[in-house]
Amino acid sequence: MSREPTLPTSLTPVSQSHLRLLDQRLLPTSEVYLDCKKVADVIVAIQQLSVRGAPAIGLAAAFGLLLEMDDYPDDAGIIRERLTAEGQALISARPTAVNLSWAVNAMLSYAASHAANLGAPGWRDRLFGAALELLEADRSACWRIGEIGADLVRTHPRVLTHCNAGSLAVSAYGTALAPIYRAHSLGAPVSVWVDETRPLLQGSRLTAFELMAHQVPCQLITDNMAAHVMASGAVDMVLVGADRVAANGDTANKIGTLGVAVLAKHYGLPFYVACPWSTIDLETTSGADIVIETRDAEEVRTIQGVASAPDSVPVYNPAFDVTDAALISGFITERGLIKAPFFETLREASQLD
Amino acid sequence: MSREPTLPTSLTPVSQSHLRLLDQRLLPTSEVYLDCKKVADVIVAIQQLSVRGAPAIGLAAAFGLLLEMDDYPDDAGIIRERLTAEGQALISARPTAVNLSWAVNAMLSYAASHAANLGAPGWRDRLFGAALELLEADRSACWRIGEIGADLVRTHPRVLTHCNAGSLAVSAYGTALAPIYRAHSLGAPVSVWVDETRPLLQGSRLTAFELMAHQVPCQLITDNMAAHVMASGAVDMVLVGADRVAANGDTANKIGTLGVAVLAKHYGLPFYVACPWSTIDLETTSGADIVIETRDAEEVRTIQGVASAPDSVPVYNPAFDVTDAALISGFITERGLIKAPFFETLREASQLD
Repeated sequence: MSREPTLPTSLTPVSQSHLRLLDQRLLPTSEVYLDCKKVADVIVAIQQLSVRGAPAIGLAAAFGLLLEMDDYPDDAGIIRERLTAEGQALISARPTAVNLSWAVNAMLSYAASHAANLGAPGWRDRLFGAALELLEADRSACWRIGEIGADLVRTHPRVLTHCNAGSLAVSAYGTALAPIYRAHSLGAPVSVWVDETRPLLQGSRLTAFELMAHQVPCQLITDNMAAHVMASGAVDMVLVGADRVAANGDTANKIGTLGVAVLAKHYGLPFYVACPWSTIDLETTSGADIVIETRDAEEVRTIQGVASAPDSVPVYNPAFDVTDAALISGFITERGLIKAPFFETLREASQLD
Repeated sequence: MSREPTLPTSLTPVSQSHLRLLDQRLLPTSEVYLDCKKVADVIVAIQQLSVRGAPAIGLAAAFGLLLEMDDYPDDAGIIRERLTAEGQALISARPTAVNLSWAVNAMLSYAASHAANLGAPGWRDRLFGAALELLEADRSACWRIGEIGADLVRTHPRVLTHCNAGSLAVSAYGTALAPIYRAHSLGAPVSVWVDETRPLLQGSRLTAFELMAHQVPCQLITDNMAAHVMASGAVDMVLVGADRVAANGDTANKIGTLGVAVLAKHYGLPFYVACPWSTIDLETTSGADIVIETRDAEEVRTIQGVASAPDSVPVYNPAFDVTDAALISGFITERGLIKAPFFETLREASQLD
């Protein structure tokens, strides 16, 4: 992964009161950064998808939580109250990715259990340290996912992916793209079919951009070409990220993932999900319990701001779908490659904590 | 179908030397017409998809063939030669839809078998009459398709469709949309899920526009949402058009149709193809023998002219895919509702000629 530094970084904690986020809405045309100094800045960045990708929004929220602590009075009760309120506001920014609430709750638990007898600056130092640990843990998890998944990619080198689960979606390396980068760096003849991923084009704008920066051979297709490409025998496996994995293995991910999974089953292709353990949500029983965010109709009626449909046409715009566990060959996590029956194997892996 | 006249007409033979084509690339934003007076004008219009839809390009070619006959010398041999050469050029404009070669060959056969002893003006009158007959036959076939398919739509009123197989794709009424319009006009509670159909957005630009003009309730989705909508139980059937149906029932249609067919099978939904008999090609044994047109990479790298991907990203852009006959519940044609085994039933229906 020696070329990783040529890619922009999705988030940089410049200081305790300054979080810099790459505005991913403008890629690949422009590389623009948002300097967040208020919690509300981070909430807006998450809602508008300036920062996106389940692990990245979790990390943005963790650092975002601390931005206004300068203004807090030196009172443990009030500090806890304000952190809890800001945390709730951050969690509410988007409903589907569990990493968001996971990261905020990790920070709040840390705040509750530590430093109760330190003043506000002391709290903030410790909390900033905790957020940096989450960042480092994410980086390390992604590296391990790359290591663990690389063998699958070496034996199935023509990979189809959907949306962006690359370095832009996390701290570094990526989740679904990490095994691809690792296998490529080990000399495997990897090539990637990139679904463009309407409506917001994370595939064409972000994944294609990342793969080109890493010099991994790729071909861009519209989402509706995946079946034809699979039918023609040009795909060996499907590899995607996740926004929330339920206890039974049902997986919420970017809209369109379910369709790709059904196609993979039809054509006898393995379908793997790569995600850090922070995406696994054993508190959610099955996909039926996952809240699917629906977004603004204009995202579908327009493309890159240009009208693509009648102004007033009714639109349905779910941002995610849920892939049945039965369609999933396995989960590539930093805790290993997890296979069915997922209800048991995910619970076993959770004991490794 | 009383509201049909509010929609623009895809093609109008103004005179023997003047074919007016609606420039469908600009819909729904602008209603602009191309006045074709040379064969080359029609070829360009077909290649650039100003006129599109298998039956419509066939009809455009039939009228296009005659545009320059004014300039022909009064010599039967030369007239035949020139018509054959122009016909070949028209057929070569796009490879996949069989209606194009079907219509041109129908005109050339007519020219060969009739009017050999008439002068050029006589030939042209007769050929123009033959082209008007093709137009009327298409209109009548579409009406019949609407009548025959309406019962299916009445019993399966929540229909998902892909691309545009409406009145803009034919002379009038449509193929896949004809049963929808008919069932709607009979009072059935029809509603339509409209796949936007990347890369050229025939669903969002044309089908949504048509359905709204007919006041048929519809909801626009991106192509990759079809699986989620089906999984949520909101679809009763899939209904699409076709560009070429092979003798065994394998069907070429707009890219993305295959994916929708696989999904329909997975979710236990009927998948019907509506097309005039001119789309059935018994000379082509199976889908493996159908030539799939690949188009310019810029169609995928840009949307409505705006960049949506890195400039130089490699692209694969097949304009069609082939749906296996095994995924198709039946064909709705003016010769009736045709069910499997298609090799036999299509051959039987061909005897009805």
